[in-house]
Amino acid sequence: MRFSQNVVMALAFLGISAGPTFAQAHDKEVEAVRAADAAWMKVYHAKDLDKSLSFLDEQGSMLVSNSPIATGKDALAKAIARDFAAGTLTWHGNKAGVARSGDLAYTSGIYEWVLNDSSGKTAIDKGKYLTVWKKEADGSWKVLYDMFNSDLPAR
Amino acid sequence: MRFSQNVVMALAFLGISAGPTFAQAHDKEVEAVRAADAAWMKVYHAKDLDKSLSFLDEQGSMLVSNSPIATGKDALAKAIARDFAAGTLTWHGNKAGVARSGDLAYTSGIYEWVLNDSSGKTAIDKGKYLTVWKKEADGSWKVLYDMFNSDLPAR
Repeated sequence: MRFSQNVVMALAFLGISAGPTFAQAHDKEVEAVRAADAAWMKVYHAKDLDKSLSFLDEQGSMLVSNSPIATGKDALAKAIARDFAAGTLTWHGNKAGVARSGDLAYTSGIYEWVLNDSSGKTAIDKGKYLTVWKKEADGSWKVLYDMFNSDLPAR
Repeated sequence: MRFSQNVVMALAFLGISAGPTFAQAHDKEVEAVRAADAAWMKVYHAKDLDKSLSFLDEQGSMLVSNSPIATGKDALAKAIARDFAAGTLTWHGNKAGVARSGDLAYTSGIYEWVLNDSSGKTAIDKGKYLTVWKKEADGSWKVLYDMFNSDLPAR
């Protein structure tokens, strides 16, 4: 009986001390990834190439529609510059998940892209995206993979 | 001196007992995700709708080009059936990563899609994909997000 009570008390103690601490730390990481996603959108929307590039891991990849995969700084800079030239992009995350170990995460959501038509008119593209994030040695979240595609019928 | 020796020996012991064990377990998880990716391709290629659906998490999503996001069994079944009707898909993973905690992972690679043209001819689409995997309660890896897009210029 004494033994069982001790076990119950020990479990209760672990539940109180470790449970919320892990959950709080985890919630904080989910918020950090959501914040990184929103901060990346802000500099991408403002067409700041250097700052947009800085959100990607050194081995990060962008998987752009109708274009081969872009991996590494030079290819990513070209891919981002093409996006900037094509129009103005806004996105909004609606899902985020982080591994228990806090080293890998994803975000997903919707985008709206105001495209510069060659005739001078603007067209609006809408679609969805998926981003995989990696926790760097300095504690920041960086993009390992980013991909988006259109909801609209193929033209 | 005795204390330092004990610490060094304790660290060496931990290094031998915990290090390889974690690395081996992690390598095993990476192999399990790669195997799930390849097994999913096999049933998708064979156009087995039930088996293809069974690789997705209950809350899994497919982010298909030129179509709204498909989430949940009914929408996923329709999205997969559309893929099956459009042609025959083959893919090959070339990257896989698993969180240290072994609960979240990604795979990425290339695909080839032999499309049924409306005129009776076949066309070949080539592109890339990104899949986010979640470890289920039963230990299996299931798809949380799947997305692919074409490398070819928009038609």
